[in-house]
Formats: sequence, C-alpha cells, structure tokens
Amino acid sequence: MANRPAAPKNANRPVTLATVAKAAGVSLPTVSKVIRGRPDVAPETRQAIERLLSEYEYVPRPVRRQSPKRRVLDLAFDALGSAYSLELIRGVVSAAAEAGVDVVVGLTPDDPHGIQWAQRLTESGRMGVISVTSSITAEQVAHFRRAGIPLVVVDPDDVPEGVPSIGATNWAGGLAATEHLLQLGHRRIATITGRPNALCSRARLHGYNAALEAAKIQADPELVRYGDFGFELARREALELLDLPRRPTAIFAACDYQALGVVEAARIRGLRVPEDLSVVGFDDVEISRWAAPPLTTVHQPLVKMGRVACQTVLALAAGERPESDRIELATHLVVRDSAAPPPAASGSSP
Amino acid sequence: MANRPAAPKNANRPVTLATVAKAAGVSLPTVSKVIRGRPDVAPETRQAIERLLSEYEYVPRPVRRQSPKRRVLDLAFDALGSAYSLELIRGVVSAAAEAGVDVVVGLTPDDPHGIQWAQRLTESGRMGVISVTSSITAEQVAHFRRAGIPLVVVDPDDVPEGVPSIGATNWAGGLAATEHLLQLGHRRIATITGRPNALCSRARLHGYNAALEAAKIQADPELVRYGDFGFELARREALELLDLPRRPTAIFAACDYQALGVVEAARIRGLRVPEDLSVVGFDDVEISRWAAPPLTTVHQPLVKMGRVACQTVLALAAGERPESDRIELATHLVVRDSAAPPPAASGSSP
Repeated sequence: MANRPAAPKNANRPVTLATVAKAAGVSLPTVSKVIRGRPDVAPETRQAIERLLSEYEYVPRPVRRQSPKRRVLDLAFDALGSAYSLELIRGVVSAAAEAGVDVVVGLTPDDPHGIQWAQRLTESGRMGVISVTSSITAEQVAHFRRAGIPLVVVDPDDVPEGVPSIGATNWAGGLAATEHLLQLGHRRIATITGRPNALCSRARLHGYNAALEAAKIQADPELVRYGDFGFELARREALELLDLPRRPTAIFAACDYQALGVVEAARIRGLRVPEDLSVVGFDDVEISRWAAPPLTTVHQPLVKMGRVACQTVLALAAGERPESDRIELATHLVVRDSAAPPPAASGSSP
Repeated sequence: MANRPAAPKNANRPVTLATVAKAAGVSLPTVSKVIRGRPDVAPETRQAIERLLSEYEYVPRPVRRQSPKRRVLDLAFDALGSAYSLELIRGVVSAAAEAGVDVVVGLTPDDPHGIQWAQRLTESGRMGVISVTSSITAEQVAHFRRAGIPLVVVDPDDVPEGVPSIGATNWAGGLAATEHLLQLGHRRIATITGRPNALCSRARLHGYNAALEAAKIQADPELVRYGDFGFELARREALELLDLPRRPTAIFAACDYQALGVVEAARIRGLRVPEDLSVVGFDDVEISRWAAPPLTTVHQPLVKMGRVACQTVLALAAGERPESDRIELATHLVVRDSAAPPPAASGSSP
C-alpha cells in the first residue's frame, strides 16, 4: 500500500475496482466483499479499502445483474396513529433487516376488491404483505392468492379463512387484568374495551366477563363500554361511568391510551387514581410507564408480534406453511401504581 | 352486460382483459383504467368491472413493461423509538402516496463511509433518501452525490454542506417557552435540553439563553442540563435540579418525553405541577395532551416536516434545486395546564 498511485480525482475515465484493488495491494474479490458489506474481511483491510474507494471517488454501477436485488415487503396499517403502530414497525423492520429485506410502510388502500392493490404489489415485485388492524375482504384475499403474494394479518377485524394471523393472548390478558382488580377487593368493575369490530377488543371483553363469572359477580351491562383505542372517546365514556349513581371502583380500559383517558376523567371529577378509582390498561406501550401514576397494564409483545409477522411472510414466500394459521403471543400483567384496593366506603370486603 | 359469458372458473387458459371488457360491454382501455386505479371511470362502471375481474379470477401479469414501476424512497432513522418518528413517518408516507411513491422505513445503516449504503440504494433503484436525526458524514454525502441519489436530512446532528435540511424554528421555540415562564413571573428557570450533538437541542438552548438575557437574568450554569430526548435521563436530571439548595421554580424540557420525566421527578419529591413547579415541553406529540396535567409545550409541525422532506426529495429527483438548503417550519407555544405563576414563597415579583 506504500507506493500506490495518487487518487485520480476529476479524471475522465471512471475508477474501476481493479484500480482500487491494486492501490490497496489486495485482490479484486476482497474489494468486492467490502462493497457488498460482507463480514469476512479484516477490519484494517476494510478501513483501508473504504478510504481508497472514497479517495478515488468510486461510483457504483447503477444495477449489477449478478447481485440479487433486495426483496421488499409491504406493511399496511389502517392508521399510523399510535405507539402500537410504531412498535410493530420496529419489530417488522428488525426481522426484515436480518433477512436483508426492505419494508415499505403505508396505509391500507381503499380498494375493497383488492384488484388495484394486488396489481400494484405484483408490478412492484413485492414479496408479501402484512396488513395491520384492517378489514381484509375475502375478495382481497383471493386476489393476493391468485397473484401469488403471501399475506399475513395482525390484529384484524376478522380472520379471513386460510390467512395466517398474528395477535396476542387477548382473552387471557382481559382475564388477568380483571382478576387482579378482583383480588384487590373490587366488586364493581367497569370495562371500556376497544373498537367493537376488532377481534382483540372482543377477546379482551370476553376475558373480563370470564373473570367476573368465575368470581360469581353478575355482569352489569351498564358497566360495559366501547372505545376506539383512543384517549378522547374513553374519557367521555369514563365520565359517564363516574357519574353513575353507583359508580364503579375500578375500570379495565382495554388499551393504554384509553386508560389515560380514564385517568383524565378521574382528574376532572376530582377523584384520585388509585385511591378513589383503580385503572388497568392494556398494551404496555412506553407512555404507560411514564403516566402519572405509572399504569398497571397488560403487556402485549408488539415488537415480537411484528417480528413474527415478518418471519411468517418470509416463510410463506419460501413456500412453507406455518404450523398454525393463528399465532398468539403471550400477554402478562405488569403491576405499577394505578390499581389499589377500593376505598373503604364503597368497596365491599372480599 | 346482460348476456355475458359465464365466468370460466378453473379454465386452463388465463383470463385476458379483453374477455372482461367484452363481458362488461366496455372498451379495453376502460378495463385497463380500472386496474390502474385511475379516477376517470364512472363509479357504476368501475364496480361492474371490478366484480367481473373478481368473478373471472383475473390474474395480473407479473411485470408489465409498459407501465412505469412505482418509485421508492428510503426513510432512515437513527432509532424508531418515539411519537416523533411516527409523526414524521405519517407525513412522509402521506406526501409520497400523493405522488405515487412508496416509502421504505428503516434504520440508518452503520456505514460511516456510506459505500455499502449508497451501493444498496443504487442497486435497488431508490429515487432518494431522507435521513432523520442521524449523523451524516461528508463521505456518505459524497457517495450519494456521485451515485446520483438525492439526500435530504431532518433534524441532523450537523448539516452537511449543500444537503437540504428540514427542521422547525427551534430557537424561536426555546425563546417562546422561556418567555412564557418569565411572563408568569418565574426568575429561576432551569432547562433540560436534548442530546448535546443534535442541532435542534443546541438551537432550543440558545433560545432559552436569549430569553433570559433579554430579561436581564444572569444564566446559572447549574440550571442547564442535557437529556437524550427520553424520559429516564430527564427524570434523573430533574431530581438533581429539585434537590439543589435553591431549586428552580420552572423547568423548560426540550422534548415532551423529557417533560414527562420532569413531572415524574416532581411527583417523587412530593411537588405538584404546576402549583409547586412549572414545566414546559417541546414537540406537542399526542401524549402531551393526555398527560396529567396536560402539558404546556412548543408545537413542532412534525407531520408537515415529513411532508416537506418528501416533497424536497421528489423535487431533487426531478432535477430541481430547493430555494434554500435549510427549511425551518414554524413552531408555536401551546398553553395547557403544566405552567403557572411560581409559588408565592420562592417566586420574586416581576
């Protein structure tokens, strides 16, 4: 590397890898390895070659036929509006990066028959689609299938026949949240579950019902409300619950944003959380740790769900079938500071 | 459309658009328009054609040479960890969708010379890159330039020469936040700004300094702290500030997550916000509305910044030069409930 030629800046003929290899005193394949980002090159050699590539102003040729093009998959959301979406993106992107696959993030197109959607993906040579919290029609599924594009859904409204779907153990999570409140001594427990169409909302509500039933508590329909996974609607529903003649001593809000809405409703009515009202959320996104008070909530492994969704698409694209069309990852209760025994006046002893 | 042939399901020969056009009683270009998602087709006609395409199980051909391939741009973050990232993604994705461009979301590769990065983008035929809150080296810039890949940076650590950068009026935001606290009567105002390397942190800190200087208040170096745009470090720094012999009556935290850390520190020390301690944040992401109390903060138009970043890459790809290499979108103060006049004992009258 001692007597290498001076870097021919602004020279007219383009720099080839051979020039760089000669200057570095290494073989052509070694330079090529550095350019491809392959790990089997000694760090000092890599550094020397990168410095030379830079000095020589090496320009990569537009498309190299010999190298396989990076594969791309689509990740489509009904909305990009919450920490939930971001954690899923993080999971999908991390698993995809490990497989050398790029991830296009976008919104689910408004295309009920799925014809343009499938067409666009086919034209772009996409290797698969992950659809999140969306309604997928049977026609869309049929079009993807015929176009040979693997489809995986995460927390769908309905699970179309034969489409792998990823979710968490929402029923078990609803059960655990409600059992925790029962163990603290609560008897009048309300719930604000998510969007009524979403499969996960329904599962969480059934978990709540199952816990009450096991404790031989008659479910009060007045105490069951629906939200939209957002703060505002949950706040309004919680205000109504707190204004009931016999108000609940605890509310299980089936999403952390909704739980924050309940905390705000309590604040508006001058009630302290957890002294006057216990609140349990769902998701365990970062804001739940940072709320005042930090939320007791059901942890949902969103990053892992994103990773599994990605791995499932990759497996389908490789011609494999998943063991099961429905994959549920475990939830668990995280106890923080927003749930406590009911106030002595309103709580009956267990 | 009355006596159309029965849909030849499971027939061996593939269905062509001509078959569908004949069955629908329309021209071939009309069917083609429907498939391309073009708007200039009457809704009833579109519906009829889509139904037929579905009944006939029309399979789009893998790659149609005649149709231009959708263009793709890369959106690379140093981390996918906060509402900030999600709002930028939303902005970039919405502007890109309007232009028929797809967005690959990922992490900034660890490639200081930029050789493999530029190579990968060139091979994948990417039309441009938006790099967010990352360090971009001069070598990376040089490689992108030589490869003909437009680069735009959002909230970078440093703005490389000649690279368009998008941000908000961070200096003006820091000034407005601090002036608000001064107007409420605070004199002992601390700040926890962001990561020391980030351009936006430095600008916010300078805005804070400028407000104090205009109010003829000697800046106290003990009251200036650095965070990392996260909750945890800000909480620790805030605890130290609150434990000072003469503690501040207000803290300007240059990021909403950091502001939540300050609120939590106050709670730990038994101080009420805003009665005992005023807090002003920065960003105005959704959690700032939902915090208890809702945060007074500086609004940063993150979705719009994402849109402008995307539009700038598209313009560069079309051979245009932006009017200015630095685009700053306006910030404004949003007054909510986390800042109030200082407690009578510690606050001196204005």
